[in-house]
Amino acid sequence: MHIVSLAGGIGGARFLRGLRATAPDAQITVIGNTGDDITLFGLRVCPDLDTVMYTLGGGIDEAQGWGRDKETHAVKEELAAYGMEPQWFGLGDRDFATHIVRSQMLAAGYPLSQITEALCARWQPGVRLLPMSDDRCETHVVVEDERGRRAIHFQEWWVRLRASVPAESIALIGADSAQPAPGVLEAIAEADAVILPPSNPVVSIGTILQVPGIREALLPKTVVGVSPIIGGAPVRGMADACLTAIGVETSAQAVLGLYGADLVDGWLVAPEDEGVALDGVAVRARPLLMHDADATAAIARAALDLALELSR
Amino acid sequence: MHIVSLAGGIGGARFLRGLRATAPDAQITVIGNTGDDITLFGLRVCPDLDTVMYTLGGGIDEAQGWGRDKETHAVKEELAAYGMEPQWFGLGDRDFATHIVRSQMLAAGYPLSQITEALCARWQPGVRLLPMSDDRCETHVVVEDERGRRAIHFQEWWVRLRASVPAESIALIGADSAQPAPGVLEAIAEADAVILPPSNPVVSIGTILQVPGIREALLPKTVVGVSPIIGGAPVRGMADACLTAIGVETSAQAVLGLYGADLVDGWLVAPEDEGVALDGVAVRARPLLMHDADATAAIARAALDLALELSR
Repeated sequence: MHIVSLAGGIGGARFLRGLRATAPDAQITVIGNTGDDITLFGLRVCPDLDTVMYTLGGGIDEAQGWGRDKETHAVKEELAAYGMEPQWFGLGDRDFATHIVRSQMLAAGYPLSQITEALCARWQPGVRLLPMSDDRCETHVVVEDERGRRAIHFQEWWVRLRASVPAESIALIGADSAQPAPGVLEAIAEADAVILPPSNPVVSIGTILQVPGIREALLPKTVVGVSPIIGGAPVRGMADACLTAIGVETSAQAVLGLYGADLVDGWLVAPEDEGVALDGVAVRARPLLMHDADATAAIARAALDLALELSR
Repeated sequence: MHIVSLAGGIGGARFLRGLRATAPDAQITVIGNTGDDITLFGLRVCPDLDTVMYTLGGGIDEAQGWGRDKETHAVKEELAAYGMEPQWFGLGDRDFATHIVRSQMLAAGYPLSQITEALCARWQPGVRLLPMSDDRCETHVVVEDERGRRAIHFQEWWVRLRASVPAESIALIGADSAQPAPGVLEAIAEADAVILPPSNPVVSIGTILQVPGIREALLPKTVVGVSPIIGGAPVRGMADACLTAIGVETSAQAVLGLYGADLVDGWLVAPEDEGVALDGVAVRARPLLMHDADATAAIARAALDLALELSR
């Protein structure tokens, strides 16, 4: 069985660990969000790809959900001592090595997909991890604060401002001319089931769906999504701020509507959201809190079972 | 008083600390060797400039003589875990930050001289540190071993092979078209005294002298050198291997001959080398072991006094 999953960062990575556990014999291709990518200190940082890679490869800081385990911060402290900006992005020493490898390979002309494969050769995540695109696409956010109205990188809004300033709009710069990375459309075409984890529907899953060709390729497939919203609030993170920015209510119903019945065939909601419905979509209520490995695997199993049921 | 000093790495840096101590009111311009520079993991590393900067700025690993104090090695270990080469060059985490800053500024278009100034703004070495050139010059060494006859980067010969394979020749690639960095010729022109520390006469001082225009600018100045050879052996390091490669004997006399009476006006040798002589050069015997700060300052003072005496 071949499963394709789209994924953002922490929530997506944890869900994927459950998916891998519940379907150990399946071939899983993960299409990772690269809209969060940012160049810091001249080094290319791919937070979502790395979170998936570290989480599935056993190198994640489990408590924090991102970054490396047993991390130290000598490089960051030294960069600050040199007065280098930004100082609000938490890069650890072990994590820096990943960005140094990636940046060196980019400078040597390798595309991000091949670099990701090379990095994964070490981590052995047990899935095939593909960036959504080898082309540079970055999510920018228009905000207005005391410094005026301006577009800032998503990470500045998300990490530095903690999304405390409302986003007027969110745009994926470079999306128009981006192409899916090699293997992305092929994996979708071969997929027996496509799973949308409870990742951010705007800046993670929504970003991947904006790469021309990906959404179109998904339409004929059996796609099951797991609601990232439970009882009107994000399971984790600040998805509500992103949904508000694009004029969508923070509810399991609204996110289903955002994805659309043309894309999604099945939708898992939490018990408190029973009643969510959309024509042409099979909605099931299941406990959706990923509070441990077993609970996470059970959610992934429910999504997979629904996909297999719907594809029959 | 304006003093110009040429300098390599460890020995030069320690000597400069003595020079600064013995002439606290002097304006000291250091012209640093950049022939040892190397690009590792896509980052530009300038070992000699950094050794001078860290040593004079109080950030050096005193026992080792190079690299940062209180250093850790998480980045290097991670790069090795990714299978990245080379693994024989000892870059610490704190040191990595310096190379990240430098590389980012190089990529942004800044010349090495401005970058060095920016780095020194943090370290406040108490001297003006200039790279010999903003142009990329790298010392390469021709060796012959079981892998055949080939040219390798100086650092590979020096650090990986510990100079255990004889060098057939040593060449500064890029020297022909290199220009002295901004400020170098001006500092020499203004200098009341020029001091050559006991740095490596081939791959440190010799390299700086190969940059077109530098040697010529030094000829009319009062130049005093401190012999890096005591009793037929290098004070530290492997200068003998470099001297052998260019067909020069490892002796205080031969190094003086290498520099030449046209360049050098005064020459300090150790007591055991009394008797060294060259027409037109004032030779003085002094204890030359830099075994502590006071001894080092005394050597620097002797060199400076000789220069002032000769320039009268």
